[in-house]
Amino acid sequence: MLPKGFIVNGVRCGIYKKAKKEDLALFYSNVSCAAAGLFTSNVVKAAPVIVSERHLKKTRGEARAVIANAGCANCCTGKRGEKDALFECRLTAEEFSIRPEEVLVASTGVIGSFMQMDKLAKGIDLLSIRTLENRSDPASGARAIMTTDTVPKVSSKKVFIGTKTVTLWAAAKGSGMMHPKLKKPHATMLAFILTDAAVEKAALDRLLLKAADNTLNKTTVDGDTSTNDALIMLANGLANNPPIAENTKHFYILAKAVNEICADLARKLARDGEGATKLIEVNVINAPDQRAAEKVAETVATSNLFKTAMFGNDANWGRIMAAAGRSGVHFNPEKTEVSIGRLTVFRNGMPTDYSEAKAKRILRQKEVTVLINLNRGKGSSRYYTCDLSCDYVKINASYRS
Amino acid sequence: MLPKGFIVNGVRCGIYKKAKKEDLALFYSNVSCAAAGLFTSNVVKAAPVIVSERHLKKTRGEARAVIANAGCANCCTGKRGEKDALFECRLTAEEFSIRPEEVLVASTGVIGSFMQMDKLAKGIDLLSIRTLENRSDPASGARAIMTTDTVPKVSSKKVFIGTKTVTLWAAAKGSGMMHPKLKKPHATMLAFILTDAAVEKAALDRLLLKAADNTLNKTTVDGDTSTNDALIMLANGLANNPPIAENTKHFYILAKAVNEICADLARKLARDGEGATKLIEVNVINAPDQRAAEKVAETVATSNLFKTAMFGNDANWGRIMAAAGRSGVHFNPEKTEVSIGRLTVFRNGMPTDYSEAKAKRILRQKEVTVLINLNRGKGSSRYYTCDLSCDYVKINASYRS
Repeated sequence: MLPKGFIVNGVRCGIYKKAKKEDLALFYSNVSCAAAGLFTSNVVKAAPVIVSERHLKKTRGEARAVIANAGCANCCTGKRGEKDALFECRLTAEEFSIRPEEVLVASTGVIGSFMQMDKLAKGIDLLSIRTLENRSDPASGARAIMTTDTVPKVSSKKVFIGTKTVTLWAAAKGSGMMHPKLKKPHATMLAFILTDAAVEKAALDRLLLKAADNTLNKTTVDGDTSTNDALIMLANGLANNPPIAENTKHFYILAKAVNEICADLARKLARDGEGATKLIEVNVINAPDQRAAEKVAETVATSNLFKTAMFGNDANWGRIMAAAGRSGVHFNPEKTEVSIGRLTVFRNGMPTDYSEAKAKRILRQKEVTVLINLNRGKGSSRYYTCDLSCDYVKINASYRS
Repeated sequence: MLPKGFIVNGVRCGIYKKAKKEDLALFYSNVSCAAAGLFTSNVVKAAPVIVSERHLKKTRGEARAVIANAGCANCCTGKRGEKDALFECRLTAEEFSIRPEEVLVASTGVIGSFMQMDKLAKGIDLLSIRTLENRSDPASGARAIMTTDTVPKVSSKKVFIGTKTVTLWAAAKGSGMMHPKLKKPHATMLAFILTDAAVEKAALDRLLLKAADNTLNKTTVDGDTSTNDALIMLANGLANNPPIAENTKHFYILAKAVNEICADLARKLARDGEGATKLIEVNVINAPDQRAAEKVAETVATSNLFKTAMFGNDANWGRIMAAAGRSGVHFNPEKTEVSIGRLTVFRNGMPTDYSEAKAKRILRQKEVTVLINLNRGKGSSRYYTCDLSCDYVKINASYRS
């Protein structure tokens, strides 16, 4: 169920060509929201990213609505692209008699195509009518932002803030070009988190960044950080709790809930990575420091050789060591331990006497955990990834056509 | 034809399981050689890398022979692995009554398996007999180091050093786990360059490093830098030229020849990357500086999305821009130009009005060049890569089994 005062809808406007599904979503709040946004750190930023950042700055972190489409990234489209993105906001704003800067915009799809504004305008019109009639269909909204995703990703949660029940609901997409590096003030993963909690803006910014760093920023499908990544959180306060300030008890309760939502989305995104047959968690522990742990985890999680071995259910742990060794982090291979599931395969500089049959049984599961223990410090990190299959290649050899 | 005084042979000893081809090569010089070696910068270094580095240090850059096998990387094999690698050198040395440290050793294959020393010993025996009988079969040597390579890679050249003709001959392998980062004093690409030129050791070190940096260190198949990369050059002086010193006219002549040999090998390696259907050159020009150009070229050349689009003959240049944008280099997308072959597809922040049919014709060639002009400085770099196909996944999903 959606948090109080939010309406979510998805419609088909025809911009997304590869399947006849909804391709335009509206996330709308009846009242003004504290809004936090994290966007891609790619130097090449899509027009909707540029416009949304500008709007968040103008309003100092307030918003009423997010309009998001699939099928066209509106990236590498120059000034015309920016005008188009802004026009999307204007059209949406007009329907609800709000200011254009209270509307945020997000896009995912082909880079280098212009928005089909006529289709978009019809779509926004249809979405507004439904929303103004108070009709809400969250499932259609979650489907509308999908591209090569095979399933919609939704996560929700209720927590108590004092005597009040606060609801969180989130939808995300991201199946390829998926290696978000979201940063403040700037994230084609798209994720939208809605809550009726009342949260101070600084607190909202802070908890969203922290949650992203632990979860979505540690998620990869193909190592290709998108030009369009966006994580947007709207908090409309209708739960009527006393506004949550930074570093208070309530802050930590909400932060934990947002972190859990983001972790749940991260796992769902990696599991549904383009062509993926399984979810893989790469855990690095006892690294020199946290940054080192992150680098090792990221390098293994993005290694094509590791990911193809996982697809083949082959416990080729040498590829884990080879990837760790090229990460730029200094460690002692003799002291490093590698485990696949609960099976330790490498220790004391040598393969253990593990059973290949047992390893294969572990690798045939839909969720596989790899543990790399560097035995050299206290740094740790977790990365969510997936295997690399023939289907990944097929999907991406013909994505545009 | 081989340079004077060199004998090259390959035999089958049975360590490589996936095909019934030669799997043990010997590169041998009748007289002592100036030797330079560049090895992997991976923190996880295979036993043969450790042993060869030690030998080059002990002899201060002299060698008589290189023994190289396919099928077993002898990596992550601890102290036993090192003993095995050393024993290979000893066995070889005994046959020719030379010192063990005059023998260098290289391996490529599965990580985490121990050398089958009985098979190896028989192979070395057979190789020595042929070599001592003065029989030479360079083609068998070039085949012996192949793993998933579909063709052997050989390059040769003659240059004049003063009045003397100097011959260079080289063999290389490397189809997957192919993204060498060779460094001094450390470089599963294997490449061996033999020459009868007389070269001072410092000059040999210097010209090899420079050639590698321009060519083999700018070559990738899958971004996975191996634990076993080795580039070894032997110069035995039998051409009788006056020994070549650094920064002399003859040095530049030889350096140019070595660079051309390495560039030729780099192109052959990338073209025969695992599953590859084409060779791709990524050229970056007018970058802020050379390091920036290298980072952009490397990021595009290793992008799975770019490489799958190339496999599909899809001019999806948005993926080129997206990869460049996540390289960590700052540039202005509005000022950036992207061309595929001679077709400019992106300029002034927007797609040009190019013909998709024409783009497809260019992409169907066996060699494709991509040019990224950042218009922001004088740095330039070239990377050799290949497309990413279903066959890459198939080859690597079952490499060990």
